[in-house]
Amino acid sequence: MKLSADIIEQRLSHWPVARLATLNTSGQPHQVPIVFVWRAGKIWSPVDGKPKHGTPLSRVRNALANPAASILLDQYDEDWSQLWWLRVDVKLEIIYLDGANEITRSEAQEAIAGLKQKYPQYKTTAVLNEPPTLLAMTPIKYRSWRAK
Amino acid sequence: MKLSADIIEQRLSHWPVARLATLNTSGQPHQVPIVFVWRAGKIWSPVDGKPKHGTPLSRVRNALANPAASILLDQYDEDWSQLWWLRVDVKLEIIYLDGANEITRSEAQEAIAGLKQKYPQYKTTAVLNEPPTLLAMTPIKYRSWRAK
Repeated sequence: MKLSADIIEQRLSHWPVARLATLNTSGQPHQVPIVFVWRAGKIWSPVDGKPKHGTPLSRVRNALANPAASILLDQYDEDWSQLWWLRVDVKLEIIYLDGANEITRSEAQEAIAGLKQKYPQYKTTAVLNEPPTLLAMTPIKYRSWRAK
Repeated sequence: MKLSADIIEQRLSHWPVARLATLNTSGQPHQVPIVFVWRAGKIWSPVDGKPKHGTPLSRVRNALANPAASILLDQYDEDWSQLWWLRVDVKLEIIYLDGANEITRSEAQEAIAGLKQKYPQYKTTAVLNEPPTLLAMTPIKYRSWRAK
């Protein structure tokens, strides 16, 4: 069974974590857990102050070479009748705040405010690193499943 | 920071859920949560009796066309100092039990026993659908991260 449109909206608005899959230039799928916020019809994820591997991050390098990406929200539960997942095929754009045009910058500022509201952890962790960078993901296709 | 070899072994042995990323034939990354068991140096996941979309499953169709896949284990926690992930680049093979040679069949039987032991849910859910099919994933590269 599928998730209803209402539940999809609710999960995108409130679920705390997603898994992002991109492709590296050798064609190898790459996954990483991300925090995100749902704003202006896009899924936004910051390159934030949590400790990181490498500069630039693989997710950024991969998206610059190939914008086709996948977002997965799901919950594991020992009661398998409670299982569900939501997969979104997305077009992933890298937004460098300093170089963005006014419309994009204003959308990004809203997303940053949304991230701070959704995650109180950003009171003590920087929401953006230098250079200020966001992943902006536009949904292309939704697919969902629930056990019952 | 990375996870130690001991912790990696422990997570692969006991963590209940992973996310699998494959590639479809249009080059779009595809993700799905899976249950799995770690046996004989491989990550095994069954095409089990949980309700499913489509036949054959996308993950199976994708792997038959392209064995490059990614496995992600991670735990989200509101305390961001507890975050960690383990990513494994894998070569994904589809094992049809009925057509497998003796060595493969014996490995697969061990994996099935391991799945039943790890997941008591298989007392009431079939561990294999028809035709009996397993995903066997051989690790190629490990990458891990923990916040502290």
